[in-house]
Amino acid sequence: MDKDKVVKLLTQLSQGDASVETVYSEMQHLPFKDLDFARVDTHRALRQGFPEVIFCLGKTPEQIIAIALELTKNHNIIIGTKCSAEQAKFIKEKMPEVSYFAQGNILFWGELAGKPKLDFTVSIVTAGTADLPVAEEASIYLQAAGVAVKRQNDIGIAGLHRLINVLPQLKDCSVCIVVAGMDGALPGVVAGLLAIPVIAVPTSVGYGASFSGVTPLLTMLNSCASGVTVVNIDNGFGAAAAALRIMQIMHKK
Amino acid sequence: MDKDKVVKLLTQLSQGDASVETVYSEMQHLPFKDLDFARVDTHRALRQGFPEVIFCLGKTPEQIIAIALELTKNHNIIIGTKCSAEQAKFIKEKMPEVSYFAQGNILFWGELAGKPKLDFTVSIVTAGTADLPVAEEASIYLQAAGVAVKRQNDIGIAGLHRLINVLPQLKDCSVCIVVAGMDGALPGVVAGLLAIPVIAVPTSVGYGASFSGVTPLLTMLNSCASGVTVVNIDNGFGAAAAALRIMQIMHKK
Amino acid sequence: MDKDKVVKLLTQLSQGDASVETVYSEMQHLPFKDLDFARVDTHRALRQGFPEVIFCLGKTPEQIIAIALELTKNHNIIIGTKCSAEQAKFIKEKMPEVSYFAQGNILFWGELAGKPKLDFTVSIVTAGTADLPVAEEASIYLQAAGVAVKRQNDIGIAGLHRLINVLPQLKDCSVCIVVAGMDGALPGVVAGLLAIPVIAVPTSVGYGASFSGVTPLLTMLNSCASGVTVVNIDNGFGAAAAALRIMQIMHKK
Amino acid sequence: MDKDKVVKLLTQLSQGDASVETVYSEMQHLPFKDLDFARVDTHRALRQGFPEVIFCLGKTPEQIIAIALELTKNHNIIIGTKCSAEQAKFIKEKMPEVSYFAQGNILFWGELAGKPKLDFTVSIVTAGTADLPVAEEASIYLQAAGVAVKRQNDIGIAGLHRLINVLPQLKDCSVCIVVAGMDGALPGVVAGLLAIPVIAVPTSVGYGASFSGVTPLLTMLNSCASGVTVVNIDNGFGAAAAALRIMQIMHKK
Amino acid sequence: MDKDKVVKLLTQLSQGDASVETVYSEMQHLPFKDLDFARVDTHRALRQGFPEVIFCLGKTPEQIIAIALELTKNHNIIIGTKCSAEQAKFIKEKMPEVSYFAQGNILFWGELAGKPKLDFTVSIVTAGTADLPVAEEASIYLQAAGVAVKRQNDIGIAGLHRLINVLPQLKDCSVCIVVAGMDGALPGVVAGLLAIPVIAVPTSVGYGASFSGVTPLLTMLNSCASGVTVVNIDNGFGAAAAALRIMQIMHKK
Amino acid sequence: MDKDKVVKLLTQLSQGDASVETVYSEMQHLPFKDLDFARVDTHRALRQGFPEVIFCLGKTPEQIIAIALELTKNHNIIIGTKCSAEQAKFIKEKMPEVSYFAQGNILFWGELAGKPKLDFTVSIVTAGTADLPVAEEASIYLQAAGVAVKRQNDIGIAGLHRLINVLPQLKDCSVCIVVAGMDGALPGVVAGLLAIPVIAVPTSVGYGASFSGVTPLLTMLNSCASGVTVVNIDNGFGAAAAALRIMQIMHKK
Amino acid sequence: MDKDKVVKLLTQLSQGDASVETVYSEMQHLPFKDLDFARVDTHRALRQGFPEVIFCLGKTPEQIIAIALELTKNHNIIIGTKCSAEQAKFIKEKMPEVSYFAQGNILFWGELAGKPKLDFTVSIVTAGTADLPVAEEASIYLQAAGVAVKRQNDIGIAGLHRLINVLPQLKDCSVCIVVAGMDGALPGVVAGLLAIPVIAVPTSVGYGASFSGVTPLLTMLNSCASGVTVVNIDNGFGAAAAALRIMQIMHKK
Amino acid sequence: MDKDKVVKLLTQLSQGDASVETVYSEMQHLPFKDLDFARVDTHRALRQGFPEVIFCLGKTPEQIIAIALELTKNHNIIIGTKCSAEQAKFIKEKMPEVSYFAQGNILFWGELAGKPKLDFTVSIVTAGTADLPVAEEASIYLQAAGVAVKRQNDIGIAGLHRLINVLPQLKDCSVCIVVAGMDGALPGVVAGLLAIPVIAVPTSVGYGASFSGVTPLLTMLNSCASGVTVVNIDNGFGAAAAALRIMQIMHKK
Repeated sequence: MDKDKVVKLLTQLSQGDASVETVYSEMQHLPFKDLDFARVDTHRALRQGFPEVIFCLGKTPEQIIAIALELTKNHNIIIGTKCSAEQAKFIKEKMPEVSYFAQGNILFWGELAGKPKLDFTVSIVTAGTADLPVAEEASIYLQAAGVAVKRQNDIGIAGLHRLINVLPQLKDCSVCIVVAGMDGALPGVVAGLLAIPVIAVPTSVGYGASFSGVTPLLTMLNSCASGVTVVNIDNGFGAAAAALRIMQIMHKK
Repeated sequence: MDKDKVVKLLTQLSQGDASVETVYSEMQHLPFKDLDFARVDTHRALRQGFPEVIFCLGKTPEQIIAIALELTKNHNIIIGTKCSAEQAKFIKEKMPEVSYFAQGNILFWGELAGKPKLDFTVSIVTAGTADLPVAEEASIYLQAAGVAVKRQNDIGIAGLHRLINVLPQLKDCSVCIVVAGMDGALPGVVAGLLAIPVIAVPTSVGYGASFSGVTPLLTMLNSCASGVTVVNIDNGFGAAAAALRIMQIMHKK
Repeated sequence: MDKDKVVKLLTQLSQGDASVETVYSEMQHLPFKDLDFARVDTHRALRQGFPEVIFCLGKTPEQIIAIALELTKNHNIIIGTKCSAEQAKFIKEKMPEVSYFAQGNILFWGELAGKPKLDFTVSIVTAGTADLPVAEEASIYLQAAGVAVKRQNDIGIAGLHRLINVLPQLKDCSVCIVVAGMDGALPGVVAGLLAIPVIAVPTSVGYGASFSGVTPLLTMLNSCASGVTVVNIDNGFGAAAAALRIMQIMHKK
Repeated sequence: MDKDKVVKLLTQLSQGDASVETVYSEMQHLPFKDLDFARVDTHRALRQGFPEVIFCLGKTPEQIIAIALELTKNHNIIIGTKCSAEQAKFIKEKMPEVSYFAQGNILFWGELAGKPKLDFTVSIVTAGTADLPVAEEASIYLQAAGVAVKRQNDIGIAGLHRLINVLPQLKDCSVCIVVAGMDGALPGVVAGLLAIPVIAVPTSVGYGASFSGVTPLLTMLNSCASGVTVVNIDNGFGAAAAALRIMQIMHKK
Repeated sequence: MDKDKVVKLLTQLSQGDASVETVYSEMQHLPFKDLDFARVDTHRALRQGFPEVIFCLGKTPEQIIAIALELTKNHNIIIGTKCSAEQAKFIKEKMPEVSYFAQGNILFWGELAGKPKLDFTVSIVTAGTADLPVAEEASIYLQAAGVAVKRQNDIGIAGLHRLINVLPQLKDCSVCIVVAGMDGALPGVVAGLLAIPVIAVPTSVGYGASFSGVTPLLTMLNSCASGVTVVNIDNGFGAAAAALRIMQIMHKK
Repeated sequence: MDKDKVVKLLTQLSQGDASVETVYSEMQHLPFKDLDFARVDTHRALRQGFPEVIFCLGKTPEQIIAIALELTKNHNIIIGTKCSAEQAKFIKEKMPEVSYFAQGNILFWGELAGKPKLDFTVSIVTAGTADLPVAEEASIYLQAAGVAVKRQNDIGIAGLHRLINVLPQLKDCSVCIVVAGMDGALPGVVAGLLAIPVIAVPTSVGYGASFSGVTPLLTMLNSCASGVTVVNIDNGFGAAAAALRIMQIMHKK
Repeated sequence: MDKDKVVKLLTQLSQGDASVETVYSEMQHLPFKDLDFARVDTHRALRQGFPEVIFCLGKTPEQIIAIALELTKNHNIIIGTKCSAEQAKFIKEKMPEVSYFAQGNILFWGELAGKPKLDFTVSIVTAGTADLPVAEEASIYLQAAGVAVKRQNDIGIAGLHRLINVLPQLKDCSVCIVVAGMDGALPGVVAGLLAIPVIAVPTSVGYGASFSGVTPLLTMLNSCASGVTVVNIDNGFGAAAAALRIMQIMHKK
Repeated sequence: MDKDKVVKLLTQLSQGDASVETVYSEMQHLPFKDLDFARVDTHRALRQGFPEVIFCLGKTPEQIIAIALELTKNHNIIIGTKCSAEQAKFIKEKMPEVSYFAQGNILFWGELAGKPKLDFTVSIVTAGTADLPVAEEASIYLQAAGVAVKRQNDIGIAGLHRLINVLPQLKDCSVCIVVAGMDGALPGVVAGLLAIPVIAVPTSVGYGASFSGVTPLLTMLNSCASGVTVVNIDNGFGAAAAALRIMQIMHKK
């Protein structure tokens, strides 16, 4: 949804700063297209160049294709998250132009920007190799939005020297996304050494009492280091979106 | 802890950019004072003017006093969070200069800055009156750090017109902290209407199946609006600290 | 909140059926009073004569009094739910006109209507004596709204003959609210014998593996009899409010 | 089970209003057929024209067929819920006349009534496209019972303008069923804007901390808007059955 | 409830073996007394001499007294379970003839039978001293019912020799009730050495990850030794009642 | 394990009633055969004619075969529980004499006794058709042990008349095993009408908030009717074993 | 229990290496004293000089005194754990010679050894000041057993330099006990830097989503660093006992 | 990571005992190799001859191969844990020299040492045959590290004589690892009879209320016998690593 527009219209109306006619006609052309099974926000953030996102989990491939077709009318970058290999195979046969990043379970319509358009760098750190898919989801979404991404993989707290080694690079970024499963202790350690925003992403990596990500989620919420914020388990996209919110307020100022 | 200093020393050492003598003598004077039962970070963020924080839960009043006495040697603003009325009463008898904000369970040594020193405003929104203590904790900490705070209380989603009414004010802030118990749905609705960072704080307000804050915590982690980040239940201080991290990166840029 | 009014204004505006001036001036006078710590919906359901409700849990007695004072300007019946004996004692000293129903933890400003104004009867059934407080909460709220209530207490499934004995009376009501703790099996048995709406209220009555109401809540959600709906643990008020929604649609038709 | 009949017989007996002979002979012909592995309620609601329902989960296809054959002796509309594609395939080979609605996992014997027989309309709203199967289950059952259904899909709270757009249509219905997964916040927002009965259905749509529907279930039980009732996760049929209970009492009055 | 009587009447009626007149007049005198807040089963098990039971948790002292007064009209032994010291104090002032067994939280009207009337012995074994209150509840109820009880306390599995020492006595009983908190392992070990019925009672004794009895409950449900059955946490009365059911079938044969 | 023998040896030794030589030589020949991956209790209950049991879950087919071969040396009836179709297929190829009861997931070596040898009847009641596999497990084990079994299927509480219809038959049995999933309310209703031992078996039948059997398990543990005992989810064998313990004590007396 | 003795007797008997007479007379004098409510292991570890332990939670002060009196007949050091201030006050009035360490909730009969008798040092590290009571419990028990203890308090991972500072001291110990609440991340970091046994003790310190110690417990069980073992929440005594087991095997070798 | 080296370097630097040049050049050659998706600790424990470990869960076969190739440059024994049959098949095709132990899901590069190099024996006891895979994981890792292992399988507490039979062998070991699912009671019984360190490993063996290993985990944490320590569910490797930590401190002394 084009938040600014809707908010502006609602407040203009509630404050008497706009005539009903103007508002109505604007509303007519605005926000969504009803595909019966989905209402597509066709104008969401059009001016910002941010990629549109389709959450693929639980949708049929046909539904994904229909939504994508509608979105391509107004956007040049579209991303599908949590897309399984089977869904991707079916879609690719109908829409050969789509790219599928299997590691991050991401569909991609358009082109990954050659070089970042914005002075804003996000570092993405993973605790282990098995956390890569979640980091990949965050990374591709940020890159598609024109944000520079630095990756540091496999920095578990069991080998602190690996973390100390990359600290200088982390310090120079605007935001640090830390992706970890199992004990989920890495974001707390990182946040104890950095003053920048740290967004923690628990992953379902682990077994037994990691309970599909519940353990790292709880660890991160209880982090001793202050100011760590957390998103849903395996929600790399959410962490990236939170980083974009920070970017937006920085560029607005 | 003075993060920059420690990180710099560690990396200088690991890269050979500093002699051991320099590092050692710097370390001697640096980071903490061992009170036997606590190691006080006496220099943490000295230059930034940020308030020092004592987490009072589980400490004896005597321990809180001893830590405060040590911290006052180097800081002029100190805050104690999660401080019960009993703890506060005992401490106030020994240290009459301390202020106690009963609603937010906060001890305060020093003075709340007259007017914000920084161009950065945080709005704090509560879903109900019972969420006020948690909002108060965030608010006092931010104000002590010299940040302007705008408060909007009792904006439950059961009365959307109250939310729409305050949207324009929320939009002009740098960060929005949303505090909610029971169903915890407010942060998702707010984030759907704002493009700025939204930090959600679940509270233990409610009864029955709100499970002392578990329900709003889960709701917030699953927010339909993208980019909402979450902190621990009742952790107003944590949300404030996350907002300060965003402020730090904005002022550094 | 006066739902009809707000919805009408919003849709008139979005459809161009009302001028901004009209809407704006209506909005000025309308929905809430900002008490700083609370936004009071002063007009909510004014025309319907339904009682206004203050959720007392987590509010200070002073806050409850201030909200009540504001509400009394426009309402003649006000109810406070989940009000502890201590809160009630403090409030009663300042507002001697308030009644306190200790069993249901309810404050009451105004008068319980002498006889029901509406052709709509709700039966409230409890499984055990300890479930009475929750049933009382539902009962007083319904009576305050002018609805006839029939009470049947202590109808546990361990003595089916007690249930069979009251079936004819239950059948003649419009809605049946069933309140049960421990195994929570009663609503399913009742719903198997009645065709009218059955609203189940789990209570925190029990010990050990009843887990403060979780067990009856789960039992009710999994009821073998179809069409049982459920509200939060100990939420007698919620069940009554759901019954009122059914009454509203019946009287509208 | 034909509730009225059984209740009437039991109470007549317990009150002495019927002779044993009458009761006995009535009982002989009445309620069920023992298929050894199942006791089929052959007369349940015969006069009301409501569809009979077979809960397919955990039954073998052979058992489903045997029950259906028995039911067809007395009913012209039969529905099977939670029927997997494999079960359906097997059954369709033996009973080609059955229809299978794959999206809602529903088997259907008989014909969907051309136009509603009753003056009672139920709106079914989904928060996202992935919630469609559960909404479909509710919808087909209601239509089979001769109830008019209005569908509104993909009305997430992240885009409030989509909800405001359909409010007028929702207001004119008798009951609103709201189906939502992930954060489950939609029913609370809807109930804050409507005075009609709102039945909330949590779905297992989501991942990570949505815990297969536990999160939306808890959110709905704690809804800030009063009078929302809740059914089991993914239980579209249950919500429809609850709506039919409301319809029954309305038409009886 | 006098089960045999009700079942007999219901089946006679459903089979035409009794006239309505007989049934009706029998029903008139039979099963309960409505005290408004409670329906007292005045005849339950009258002929068997089993004690009547009042579950005191959540009842007011006045309610307990009223129920007891009603029951004393037809019974000479009445027991109140889960009765707090405060409740007992209040009741004892009004009814000085009542005895209060503080350890088992039991009220007792009547006299503990001098010597067992039945050839049936139940052994009650506790794992630790802190499990005594739950064992006491079971013990008093059984003794009041005229059953011989053998007690063996503090037989933890950490000292197997204590268990082996009492095995011969346990073997000679009809039923063994095993009461244990913490790890709850004792019933499984006992059941591995005995062929008689073993009823396991988990207790809320313990701390940390014993979760108020959840851990011993789960341990007992998963017992490696086959044929262990389990009752609710701290439910000594329930275990005793289950033992009485076994006694009843033995004496009937 | 041959309990009597081991207990007798241990107590004789601890009381000095047997010489070491006797004990030692008895022990040499006695209890188990070490197959390296399993220690087979070759003499367990040899004199009682009870079937030996192999818990197949988690064992390889080869391990099951080896254990069965060892057991057949001393037993003529052997049962394997929780045996998957794949395991059974593999085993049947190597041991064609084995029978596989697919519904109950049971392997069977030997012959189901033509007619019960013991005067002891167990009724097994299921709430729904999907509970049959668990009931089957209990039934076959009991029949193999020479116990008469009466089956009553699909007696859900949503149709009480079906339950009342079979009450007379249930009353005449020695023990009643009640198998139920979803809301798990049936055992409590049955126990309210019967005085014989009632053993409740929760099943994983259901979906959503039935949580794979947790809900019926909790319901049963909190049963309002006193004296219901419970075994693990889906543990039909455990309920049967508990019934056999009751039988043993009855026949011993 | 004197493990060696019991095991030796049992195995001698099962192997024929001892006459029944010898065993019997030894058994007579051996292991426990039956106080009716408790069976006291009077000889447990007498020769090792290890302190005897009374778990006070759930015991009456009178029971604690009786057990202590029995134990003092054979031991000179006795410890009571989890003893509340109220229990201690009552006991101290009857037994003035007892010491009460309020911070660790420990009773102490005897004298804390002046200097360690054994070449074995245990370091006890706490993450925060509020973890001290649990560390104290471990510390006093170890000291009472003659083991040297090194304490390092308030070493949270938010300030890594504090940990690095004490590493050399930790390295020189035989075992490291790490006590932490909240996120529970410290043991994993410590274990990544040390090769000695690390025993992790989660504490109930924290609030909100720390769930009274569940979060640090889960974090520790999922530690990335290999070989960390864990004891129950707040179980300082258990960690100390595990350290003593290691000491025993070292001194035996 | 080569813990001694890193700790030594860090402390030398922080104490001024080493020049930066030495430290820097040492660091250059030291700890890890960055493979982009993983940072391999190439020197970890090189001198000790301990096997290097790759945690295979969640890694692609290609990643496992790449890490293994890097590790083989410096190690002669490498182990991969939690490796599925599919992963193993793929890897074996590319690296035919690898061995796959299917029961323990372990990859093995190198040779299992012919005879133990160290005077340290670990006994591994399983409660049931289905626990073997977890025991196998521990066993192979220990043997690869040159430690003698004694295996005792299928020692459930339902047959205590099997446990008593092997006690003498367990007593002579240095450490006892006890692996159990279902009720998880075995470690507590074993620890009650042994004075050596007991490390408990819960397994996911069981069904229903064993909750994939949660039940044995909780049982073990609450063990009545003192000093039992616990690792994650199914974490045989972790138990072995904890045993190695004990061995290291013993050999150092």
